[in-house]
Amino acid sequence: MNPRFFVDSSAIERQGGGGFVAEIAGDEAHHALRVLRIAPGDEVVVLDDSGLEYHGRVREVASRDKPPRFWVQGETIEPAAGEPPFRVCLVQALPKGDKMDLVVQKGTEVGITHFAPALSERVVVEYDPRKAEARRARWQRIAQEAAKQGGRGRRPQVAAIRPVLQCLVDLKDELILVLWEQAETPIKKVLREENRQGIGGVALVVGPEGGFSAREVEAMEALGARAVSLGPRILRTETAGPVAAAIVLYEWEGG
Amino acid sequence: MNPRFFVDSSAIERQGGGGFVAEIAGDEAHHALRVLRIAPGDEVVVLDDSGLEYHGRVREVASRDKPPRFWVQGETIEPAAGEPPFRVCLVQALPKGDKMDLVVQKGTEVGITHFAPALSERVVVEYDPRKAEARRARWQRIAQEAAKQGGRGRRPQVAAIRPVLQCLVDLKDELILVLWEQAETPIKKVLREENRQGIGGVALVVGPEGGFSAREVEAMEALGARAVSLGPRILRTETAGPVAAAIVLYEWEGG
Repeated sequence: MNPRFFVDSSAIERQGGGGFVAEIAGDEAHHALRVLRIAPGDEVVVLDDSGLEYHGRVREVASRDKPPRFWVQGETIEPAAGEPPFRVCLVQALPKGDKMDLVVQKGTEVGITHFAPALSERVVVEYDPRKAEARRARWQRIAQEAAKQGGRGRRPQVAAIRPVLQCLVDLKDELILVLWEQAETPIKKVLREENRQGIGGVALVVGPEGGFSAREVEAMEALGARAVSLGPRILRTETAGPVAAAIVLYEWEGG
Repeated sequence: MNPRFFVDSSAIERQGGGGFVAEIAGDEAHHALRVLRIAPGDEVVVLDDSGLEYHGRVREVASRDKPPRFWVQGETIEPAAGEPPFRVCLVQALPKGDKMDLVVQKGTEVGITHFAPALSERVVVEYDPRKAEARRARWQRIAQEAAKQGGRGRRPQVAAIRPVLQCLVDLKDELILVLWEQAETPIKKVLREENRQGIGGVALVVGPEGGFSAREVEAMEALGARAVSLGPRILRTETAGPVAAAIVLYEWEGG
């Protein structure tokens, strides 16, 4: 797979005849030139979160500019293949330690489009509110890196940390599935009975290490969520979201 | 979930009237007494890899014995709920660093029953043969710990490191699926067309970071394997096996 770079759409200029020129600068350029040792003539893919892929070659490198930058020129612009045809949102109650890093990396690989880090009754980690934005930015960087390596066409969005019920209220027309070990309805039953055509997306809601309380699940159900089981085994909190997303996409994406 | 302990079946003694007494010793007892602070009266589950669960209470604790041990007595013996109804084997070409630890932990959570760490053309890690058994024992410990936490009824078995083709030759009557990013057949097509009733199990074969060569895939196909795609995104080597196993079990386990 050719190296992939995300830029703002303003960095891509369409040219007459269907071609484009893109400027890659900042951290992306730094990494490309210092670590990947990108050089003129290399084939690369530029992405701007529009759902399109711009295939071209490196035309010129300015590695001594501060910050360094380079330009890509090409003719092939096509839909990005690695994007799910509907939103896949993971509302993840904050797990301990640095496990959210793993959730974001693996979740991006399998195809999650939105991450909503959440607070719930049994969340035990506490972030200093002043550090919450730094955490979010870290997860956003992990998502971007995983999106590049996984052939994604858009960068998943990582939202600010909010209470779990607020995350649900802020959803649009997603089918909301709470993964709850005490639920009796298998996720398979819901996925096979729902009409995916009428659904704008799926939101998967995962509790922290201690799970959700019955009261929390009731409150989520009152907001339209359905509690489902992932099967007879118990997955750790950091495993449940990416696995459930992979299953939703297995069932509903493509043929 | 009550704490779960794996023992050799010789450590469980059936009693008249349908009850049992089990002795837990060694590392399991050490961990139970020192970390979990198990005490007389606590409800626990004892497992012996037979596919049965023994539910009972701690009767007596000998924490000053060297090694420490304790005894569990109970009446309820029932089939272990967390075991797949067929073998799920992961043939994993060795990934870099300690990623195999993650593969074994996450794979055990989702339900893999056998791990076969493998060598292939593009494997870059090299284990000193004298350390290979220590590695295997480490993965076996990780599998045991994950099996306890995940509610599994049996400990997955971790085989010795072997060449990937040898792993395939040593399989019994498994449906062999090579997860290959260049394959055109979606895994969904194969899972929905195959008759799972006639299959003793599924073996999933995953390449290292650099993937399998076309030549390797051909050799595996000559041994009866089918190359399949996991979808439009590219999963890292350590993600592919657990995700594919979760999908196989989603499709074929239960209703």
